[in-house]
Amino acid sequence: MSDVSRTVLVLGGARSGKSAFAERLVLSGEGLAHYIATGRAWDDEMRERISQHRERRGELWTTHEEPLALTALLSQLDSPENVILVDCLTLWVTNLMMEEGADIDAAFSALAQHAASARAKIVFVSNEVGLGIVPDNRMARQFRDLAGRLHQDIAAMSAQVYFIAAGLPLKMKG
Amino acid sequence: MSDVSRTVLVLGGARSGKSAFAERLVLSGEGLAHYIATGRAWDDEMRERISQHRERRGELWTTHEEPLALTALLSQLDSPENVILVDCLTLWVTNLMMEEGADIDAAFSALAQHAASARAKIVFVSNEVGLGIVPDNRMARQFRDLAGRLHQDIAAMSAQVYFIAAGLPLKMKG
Amino acid sequence: MSDVSRTVLVLGGARSGKSAFAERLVLSGEGLAHYIATGRAWDDEMRERISQHRERRGELWTTHEEPLALTALLSQLDSPENVILVDCLTLWVTNLMMEEGADIDAAFSALAQHAASARAKIVFVSNEVGLGIVPDNRMARQFRDLAGRLHQDIAAMSAQVYFIAAGLPLKMKG
Repeated sequence: MSDVSRTVLVLGGARSGKSAFAERLVLSGEGLAHYIATGRAWDDEMRERISQHRERRGELWTTHEEPLALTALLSQLDSPENVILVDCLTLWVTNLMMEEGADIDAAFSALAQHAASARAKIVFVSNEVGLGIVPDNRMARQFRDLAGRLHQDIAAMSAQVYFIAAGLPLKMKG
Repeated sequence: MSDVSRTVLVLGGARSGKSAFAERLVLSGEGLAHYIATGRAWDDEMRERISQHRERRGELWTTHEEPLALTALLSQLDSPENVILVDCLTLWVTNLMMEEGADIDAAFSALAQHAASARAKIVFVSNEVGLGIVPDNRMARQFRDLAGRLHQDIAAMSAQVYFIAAGLPLKMKG
Repeated sequence: MSDVSRTVLVLGGARSGKSAFAERLVLSGEGLAHYIATGRAWDDEMRERISQHRERRGELWTTHEEPLALTALLSQLDSPENVILVDCLTLWVTNLMMEEGADIDAAFSALAQHAASARAKIVFVSNEVGLGIVPDNRMARQFRDLAGRLHQDIAAMSAQVYFIAAGLPLKMKG
């Protein structure tokens, strides 16, 4: 890990309060707040969620939507005065899996490398999905494996890692 | 959170030892021990579990069964000499979802409000269910979302929150 | 718990980095490193995993494969100079469930008893599988219950218990 990493990883389950925790983390510090939504508005349920998020975040944030080229967008925004929330890594993994011909290994290592030395502060939010029964479905197993690997890679490059349950943070690193 | 909250939330996975931990917590303190079972004896498997629980708890407890009107029962028992174990919140959420016309939002906020200022000590047990793969089934997704929200609400009102794995407690708050 | 237990339990989700953590734990100490693989090479995917593991571990380890008679093998290797990694308990539970006529309760208590007083240092790796939605499938529910009970039994007999997420250890005991 780079000694200069300012990156934070916020892991948690569904409805654990991980996004709200990450938002408070960004707003409690200095810097210009950027929000990168990686989710695609596939259906009304998702559109509704995105618009609720947008409303809750209000005027303090600049919002970006980027389902795939996450590292490229982070590079564009890579200035010390920026604090960037990425919500969330698991949706990005899903999008990569859906994208024909995507080189997932290369995408993971580019992101981890960027995370290790970024000048902006980056707060990654991601879903921990590996603590249930092995899924029957092969795609789901692959997704779970990829998410787990990415979490390990990003955690290794992060200055701080939090695990959130019931809205409460548990510091795992930093 | 009320400064006077005596409420405790004990979260854990299936067969994590969360109920046994909560029972020890209740019995290690002062007070008259009450046990509220929220589960319905749908089938023989469940009836067997309830009767095993009852046997293990023995004579020290007053047992109540209440699948829905949990906050009303807690209000009736709300005296400083009572210590009340509620086992568990996730079954209560399931019962609310099954009940036609139930106002789940209202039920959640009534319970959280009661938890914040109860004079009895209340120990809530609940299943963490949000750390696996997103379920295919819409009802299961809704259940997971509701349970997660309720955990956040109750945790915010609790003096102490524990996460249990392999029978071991991890203190997340208090 | 025996005061002399040297046993360690390493719990974590899928791709949490639990095996790599356990391997480092074994190699960082003194002693002759033994690796017990409990998994059966059912299919090519599994064979590939086992061979990758073998390659990563290299020449420092003596490797054993034992799907069922785990406690018997541990007894054979029970000498103070040995450090034994068992990877993993959840696959052993699966194998017991598949084995007609296996006395799972007896197998669990023999293992826990051995863990409490072994002269070799034993590091058990296991999957936490109880933090998702209740599975539809009855076998999966039974597996989840058995794994949870075994984790409680082994944790009670262990000197140290770790929970791993994103490659990071959280000490729960010891």
